[in-house]
Amino acid sequence: MSLEVLGYIAAFLTSVSFIPQAVMTIRTRDTHGISRGMYLMFTTGVAFWLAYGIYLVSWPMIVANLVTLLLAATILVLKLRYG
Amino acid sequence: MSLEVLGYIAAFLTSVSFIPQAVMTIRTRDTHGISRGMYLMFTTGVAFWLAYGIYLVSWPMIVANLVTLLLAATILVLKLRYG
Repeated sequence: MSLEVLGYIAAFLTSVSFIPQAVMTIRTRDTHGISRGMYLMFTTGVAFWLAYGIYLVSWPMIVANLVTLLLAATILVLKLRYG
Repeated sequence: MSLEVLGYIAAFLTSVSFIPQAVMTIRTRDTHGISRGMYLMFTTGVAFWLAYGIYLVSWPMIVANLVTLLLAATILVLKLRYG
């Protein structure tokens, strides 16, 4: 078995990990303990990962970063809205 | 200029983004709005990214993921401790 599987497990975990945070924040609107600086930088960074994936024509990078971008942007918008 | 720079900007932003969250959580101990599920999955995922970087002998991946692992694990420990 190729150790490429490590990359697929990594991409899956770090992408879907934002699902429970997004669901929790949508439900509770409790954004007090969430850092705005983190989500500003993280969302921008994921947009760069997506651009880099498009440049490399790497579909795993494109798909994983599209999902993460959507989730992180949702959390960022909630943070900006609820403070 | 090579578009490889997109990857370096991406790696820098997504790694250092966890600094303001770690600093904020250490200072305030306000972990209520932070998802335990997210940090369990994310920290595990970053450990897999690190392993994949070691497999690829990619120093940018190794360095970026070591930094992110340290920061994410710190936030996870605080979440598990303060609930």
